Amino acid sequence: MASKSAPGLEGVTVGETQITHVGGDEGTLRFRGYNATELSAQVSYEEAAHLLLRGELPSPSELQELKSSWYPLRPLPPELVQLVGRIPRGTLPMEALRSGLSLMGVGMRPFPPREEDLLPFIARAPTWLAMWYRASRDLPPIPPDTTLGHVSSYLYMLEGRLPDPDLARALEEYFVLLSDHGMNASTFAARVVLSTQSDPSSAMTAAVGALKGPLHGGAPSLVLDMLDAVGTPENAELWVASALERRERLMGFGHRIYKVEDPRAVELKQIARRFATPERFRLAEAVERAGLEALRKVRPHQPLYINVEFYAGVVLEAVGLPRELFSATFGIARTAGWAAHLLEQSRNNRIIRPEADYTGPAPRPVPLRSVAPPAAAVPRAA
Amino acid sequence: MASKSAPGLEGVTVGETQITHVGGDEGTLRFRGYNATELSAQVSYEEAAHLLLRGELPSPSELQELKSSWYPLRPLPPELVQLVGRIPRGTLPMEALRSGLSLMGVGMRPFPPREEDLLPFIARAPTWLAMWYRASRDLPPIPPDTTLGHVSSYLYMLEGRLPDPDLARALEEYFVLLSDHGMNASTFAARVVLSTQSDPSSAMTAAVGALKGPLHGGAPSLVLDMLDAVGTPENAELWVASALERRERLMGFGHRIYKVEDPRAVELKQIARRFATPERFRLAEAVERAGLEALRKVRPHQPLYINVEFYAGVVLEAVGLPRELFSATFGIARTAGWAAHLLEQSRNNRIIRPEADYTGPAPRPVPLRSVAPPAAAVPRAA
Repeated sequence: MASKSAPGLEGVTVGETQITHVGGDEGTLRFRGYNATELSAQVSYEEAAHLLLRGELPSPSELQELKSSWYPLRPLPPELVQLVGRIPRGTLPMEALRSGLSLMGVGMRPFPPREEDLLPFIARAPTWLAMWYRASRDLPPIPPDTTLGHVSSYLYMLEGRLPDPDLARALEEYFVLLSDHGMNASTFAARVVLSTQSDPSSAMTAAVGALKGPLHGGAPSLVLDMLDAVGTPENAELWVASALERRERLMGFGHRIYKVEDPRAVELKQIARRFATPERFRLAEAVERAGLEALRKVRPHQPLYINVEFYAGVVLEAVGLPRELFSATFGIARTAGWAAHLLEQSRNNRIIRPEADYTGPAPRPVPLRSVAPPAAAVPRAA
Repeated sequence: MASKSAPGLEGVTVGETQITHVGGDEGTLRFRGYNATELSAQVSYEEAAHLLLRGELPSPSELQELKSSWYPLRPLPPELVQLVGRIPRGTLPMEALRSGLSLMGVGMRPFPPREEDLLPFIARAPTWLAMWYRASRDLPPIPPDTTLGHVSSYLYMLEGRLPDPDLARALEEYFVLLSDHGMNASTFAARVVLSTQSDPSSAMTAAVGALKGPLHGGAPSLVLDMLDAVGTPENAELWVASALERRERLMGFGHRIYKVEDPRAVELKQIARRFATPERFRLAEAVERAGLEALRKVRPHQPLYINVEFYAGVVLEAVGLPRELFSATFGIARTAGWAAHLLEQSRNNRIIRPEADYTGPAPRPVPLRSVAPPAAAVPRAA
């Protein structure tokens, strides 16, 4: 077969998906046909997960059934509880999440995975992360409450008290909005790994590893660092100009796919408007405006908007999450999407294995070596 | 851009590589231009790693320098020593290796990785696996000896005594032969993960996850199980015929890329001939012959040969490795190749992210839900 060269696989379609449609040209994001921003305002994360995994929103009884298989999975097995406090000091949150998803994969069943093989990863990822986070700060662990909703439970395990329902709901909107995004790099990594007939733990671990990279999911907290550096709305224009002069990258602007405004960014801005302090929100808006103006002057013919990260940081700060957990929280929100893609991959599986053009040295003979005696060439005394 | 549809990415070239050329049509495998089978007979694993990582075989002083940065990395940091004995019971060797490579990745430096960021994973993977294996069988740990060669050291840490030099050298030939194989699924997974500007630990962890799948690296021990089931050379023909009648897959036959004999299989057969017991080797040869005859009758026009797994199992058994460690040993041998590919990926990086055709439900409105009250719609009392 004549091979098609596609650096970065841009423009290559790896297969079909019935989960998520990312309308980059028109700025739409749909999960199983439903507008993601409409969903985020109306459904719980559990309902969104049901939709992603099974293709339809649950009936009340289906939702009840899902919760009753999901919530009891929340506590970590005792062996993982023992490990979570011993993760080496200096481990980053995404590294801790990655190791947790790997350590949870004990004696995994052979391919293909079923929904019940995937649910434990969605259910336990927040438990692992919260327990690790508290242990890493020498705080006592908070055992999970198996009656709370998924997102409330995450906040509860971090803070040790029941979260403000409005704030928990704001975080839940973030969780639903971020729960999937088509064939992004982490989801693709997960599908590549599963495609060898590997298991969900291996695939989810790979996905977290990919999401850890700043080109994918690794920088929502940097937007806040930028806002802190700007300081006041009045300083935004000057700060942006001087950052661009220093050739620094402005955080939270631009996206490879969306040619118009990222619908998640629009929605997160509305959530930020409601829940951030008025000062924080005004500052973010001023930096958004100054950044867009300055960048559009530099590249007037290129569509340019803020991306999902810009207001994500503001929202996550408003709900009280520590800044260092932003990326890992994104990962936790994405587990439902990864799980749905793994089910889809397993139903029509084919190993994902591209080719590479060899452009290295021409064939050459191995020089005579004096270093490694070819001991094995001597027949073994049988 | 018009998108090119390529299920499994077959026939798609994802980029250039200067590391390894797999000549599937002519049955050649070359690392940096050198024939892999010639290399395996003449160089140590350390020399092969130098070749893969830096493009050239080392001079004696370069080799000395490499060893003096490599061997001292061998012991695990104390925090990992504490963890290795606490991996949950029931964890499979590939799961343990995956978790180890993840747990080693503590506070990883930002992209791009340098050689010295990769070497610890090559050096410590065998230590982790051997210590985990002994702990999982309640055997006392054997601290690594930092003077032994890489492969001898692995055997030493498993068995607690200096290995027979000929057997260690036979295993080293296996290590060199298996050290890379172009853009296979695990290497591709590692490059996808790194391409988001993630780190070597995330990438290596993903690679092990992909290698775990039976479609990639997961079945060398099954060849031995098959040989055990056949029992005697005389039984080979009958056993093969009845296995095919039961529509069972014969282990160790066929490869997606090689249209002629896999050169690694040829070499491993020679090593097996020297080191396996004569009975074992005769049995393997009889099953090879019976399998090829029977399969070629079924598909007379299809090139069919044994693959690398067929004699790999026989060799690994001959050097005394426990059967359950075969796949993880393959992973350890492949770490040098993964590391070389990560360096190459980082030097000319571009995020690897294909597209998917959406074939799911058409746009539809979110039905009115009574389950999740949109609490966040209520403005927060500021």
